[in-house]
Amino acid sequence: MTCTLTVSVAPPALEQLKAHLNTVQDLKAMGELLHWDQSTYMPTGGAQARARQSATVKRLAHEHFTQDQVGYWLEEVEPYGLTLPYGSTEASLIRLVRKEFTKARRVPACFMAQVAEHSAHTYEAWIKAYAQNDFSLVRSKLERTLELSQQLAGYFAPYDHIADPLIDFADPGMKARSIHVLFSQLEAHLIPMVQQVLAQSPLADQCLRQHFPEEAQLSFGLEAIKAFGYDFGRGRQDKTHHPFMTKFSLGDVRITTRIREDDPREAIFSTLHEAGHALYEQGIDPSFEALPLAEGVSAGVHESQSRLWENLVGRSRGFWEHFYPRLQRYFPDQLGSITLETFYRAINKVERSLIRTDADELTYNLHVMLRFDLELALLEGRLAVKDLPEAWNEGMRARLGLVPSTAKEGVLQDVHWFDGLIGGAFQGYTLGNIMAAQFYQAALAAEPAIHTDIQHGQFGRLHTWLKTHVYQHGSKFTPDELIRQATGQPLGIEAYLGYIRTKYGEIYALSL
Amino acid sequence: MTCTLTVSVAPPALEQLKAHLNTVQDLKAMGELLHWDQSTYMPTGGAQARARQSATVKRLAHEHFTQDQVGYWLEEVEPYGLTLPYGSTEASLIRLVRKEFTKARRVPACFMAQVAEHSAHTYEAWIKAYAQNDFSLVRSKLERTLELSQQLAGYFAPYDHIADPLIDFADPGMKARSIHVLFSQLEAHLIPMVQQVLAQSPLADQCLRQHFPEEAQLSFGLEAIKAFGYDFGRGRQDKTHHPFMTKFSLGDVRITTRIREDDPREAIFSTLHEAGHALYEQGIDPSFEALPLAEGVSAGVHESQSRLWENLVGRSRGFWEHFYPRLQRYFPDQLGSITLETFYRAINKVERSLIRTDADELTYNLHVMLRFDLELALLEGRLAVKDLPEAWNEGMRARLGLVPSTAKEGVLQDVHWFDGLIGGAFQGYTLGNIMAAQFYQAALAAEPAIHTDIQHGQFGRLHTWLKTHVYQHGSKFTPDELIRQATGQPLGIEAYLGYIRTKYGEIYALSL
Repeated sequence: MTCTLTVSVAPPALEQLKAHLNTVQDLKAMGELLHWDQSTYMPTGGAQARARQSATVKRLAHEHFTQDQVGYWLEEVEPYGLTLPYGSTEASLIRLVRKEFTKARRVPACFMAQVAEHSAHTYEAWIKAYAQNDFSLVRSKLERTLELSQQLAGYFAPYDHIADPLIDFADPGMKARSIHVLFSQLEAHLIPMVQQVLAQSPLADQCLRQHFPEEAQLSFGLEAIKAFGYDFGRGRQDKTHHPFMTKFSLGDVRITTRIREDDPREAIFSTLHEAGHALYEQGIDPSFEALPLAEGVSAGVHESQSRLWENLVGRSRGFWEHFYPRLQRYFPDQLGSITLETFYRAINKVERSLIRTDADELTYNLHVMLRFDLELALLEGRLAVKDLPEAWNEGMRARLGLVPSTAKEGVLQDVHWFDGLIGGAFQGYTLGNIMAAQFYQAALAAEPAIHTDIQHGQFGRLHTWLKTHVYQHGSKFTPDELIRQATGQPLGIEAYLGYIRTKYGEIYALSL
Repeated sequence: MTCTLTVSVAPPALEQLKAHLNTVQDLKAMGELLHWDQSTYMPTGGAQARARQSATVKRLAHEHFTQDQVGYWLEEVEPYGLTLPYGSTEASLIRLVRKEFTKARRVPACFMAQVAEHSAHTYEAWIKAYAQNDFSLVRSKLERTLELSQQLAGYFAPYDHIADPLIDFADPGMKARSIHVLFSQLEAHLIPMVQQVLAQSPLADQCLRQHFPEEAQLSFGLEAIKAFGYDFGRGRQDKTHHPFMTKFSLGDVRITTRIREDDPREAIFSTLHEAGHALYEQGIDPSFEALPLAEGVSAGVHESQSRLWENLVGRSRGFWEHFYPRLQRYFPDQLGSITLETFYRAINKVERSLIRTDADELTYNLHVMLRFDLELALLEGRLAVKDLPEAWNEGMRARLGLVPSTAKEGVLQDVHWFDGLIGGAFQGYTLGNIMAAQFYQAALAAEPAIHTDIQHGQFGRLHTWLKTHVYQHGSKFTPDELIRQATGQPLGIEAYLGYIRTKYGEIYALSL
């Protein structure tokens, strides 16, 4: 972009708008804090009021953001914004706020509050349904969730597909059709690879099925993400049921994990994953604090960073060349006699599995595609919530050749539909996988030494490249703009295919 | 109160007003959660934004509560309220909201936000000043605090004393003059008692000056407050710098503590103390949830409950008859050979001390009176902030015959002025001591078996009496009404004098 000499002066409305946006962002941060606390430390007695409180802050945030005054301020500052370079902070802020304001004005604040309160109650019902392994305990709630999801989409009619407005909240610029095309291409390559792999005798992973005490697992995870560059002065890790990253400000970006003492993969890879999300948020330009720019730009781009650090780095041989001896020191009895190669193959074992978050890199995307298809079917009205468990099981049989025997292993396994809406909840995971490989390829092309750095436990070069090309920009650019600027290409599956072919081709000696 | 047949029907405005008050209370709860998190788990990097966020929610709460519409609703519902029995929930709600609305309308919302933001920054500065033992690091902040305190009082002019409006926020109905009278009476009795006690050779407390590992201290504290009736399904305990109780809803009332491994009194008595506050809040009528009625009615009454459970129960011989053998089981090496009587006398040792929160029951009030006098002097302009450390030290010498050698042991020891305003911050502690004895005397008169119950670790009878006569009412009645209803008397120092004379007369064989 060219630098033009700007002589125009920011109108006073810009400062007023920013101050107002600070309030909106503070209310959103409050919602995040309510959720973090609910998921980590809140006693059960707090649940009912917490649902109301979440609804209150979401409604207030929405009410504040959609005030008429915001529209007047925007009209005042837009001519000024057009005099600024496209990539300048203020021009980007004005563009983003206009876009989000236009969208938000279509939705009544009381509807947002309804959704928030319903979600909080549904989450509590899901906790019970999950514990009791009984979908019927949350079915009527999920039926209401579907109605609310359809109602939300309705505010954006006309659309090409009813899922489009919902997808756009998570992944701006993406549509059901474009995602479907991308997923179909990918699936066409994945299925034969998975078939070839599964035709072989399975890799051994008994070394991971031992007792690994919690404290040592936590310590190892913290050591690894510290090396990544996660800043503990601006974050912390706590335990929860379903790991997530959350942000209360650019100075306070937290992660959560869960530990299984009978399988260290859970804690290790969820820690690396959430740290990837957190590195993104911690890397945003500090001058964006309390403005809507200070957010990861989309679910897909966010997920690209969690998956990049979890998989492309964290499941690579290079990473473990440095970290495996350290892990062995934490678990000498369990891993002392296990070779790096055995461990590396164990953590990259491909197999049919029921649980998305436990799935290997290859089959993972099939889990996501199943959920994406189910969301479209539900929203279109082709599938009723009461038939969802069966449709889920049928989809699992068709795509993965496995049928869950319980709801916990099936339709109840993911929190998303029970903690938010149906539509737009899952595509980001596979978009993220695809983007991760494309970003990583660009980073390696620019900085080939990243590869050997990682073998020595050094992540500064990679972290800096990502900060420069992705993190610092927050939501300044659209996901499409960001990807093109960072990688020189529009989003495509080539880099991802190259990555999985090379990696799994080698591990499984595939003919591709 | 007599039951009258009410034929009037609640106007629709009452439901609208209640819904609006729910939002205000939710915003206040959000402020509490921000503070709890800041004091327990927040990384240091979060401090700056947290100050802004605290200011935002306080401002929003104030803005919402002071909207013109609240006044219109009040006008609509007040005639209805007058048809209801005085002690009914709705009549009490309308009375309370009118009173608080009238007060709140005198203060601009932006001023409240200024105070909140200033407080959060001052708190961070105090943390540093305290760590570095250097009052100068927070002096200019405290000067601003004094200005803000005077400004707040100014919104309520004319007044008898500049501290009156500030005291009224904490202890409704109390004034500088009435407190001064009460404190002077008490001091006249305390000083000779303290002199008699200090003329004797000090009681031995070496048994408490050993190493007591943290985990066992925490476990013992939890066991004791569970027996009190603290409901862990609606609460939890975490660690902090300066223990406090906080409430996010009637289903979520939390406490915090701090532990000194070289002195178990810190954790034990702060736990019993905060649990006393929490029992009060957990005992409020659940139908008050998210209404302003769902709060302890004043600083003094709140403190009466923390001090009642901490001191009248928790430092009594009867309590330890049951709990001392349990404490010995947690610390067999440290306490196995120490008799109950030695332990009882050690935890009730009276001595000159520098730190209020470490002070025994007798000298404690002298610490409070010093702070109360300093607040009046600062607010009146008789004392400048720069001269405060010296005035503090001089006051300590005069009242307690001891001079702090450092700021940490002097003016920096309490968080109150650095986390809020000057004025009304301390009188509640001694009012609470006085009230605690009066409530306890009434409870024992009604239920003499409370005494033997406690010797058996049974607290249900006491807890029930307090719930019935104090807790359930929340803020339905004024403190004065509550005390008269519960004890049959206006507030007076007789019960408290009787309590300390009996207890310390026995321990120290005083001639009174």
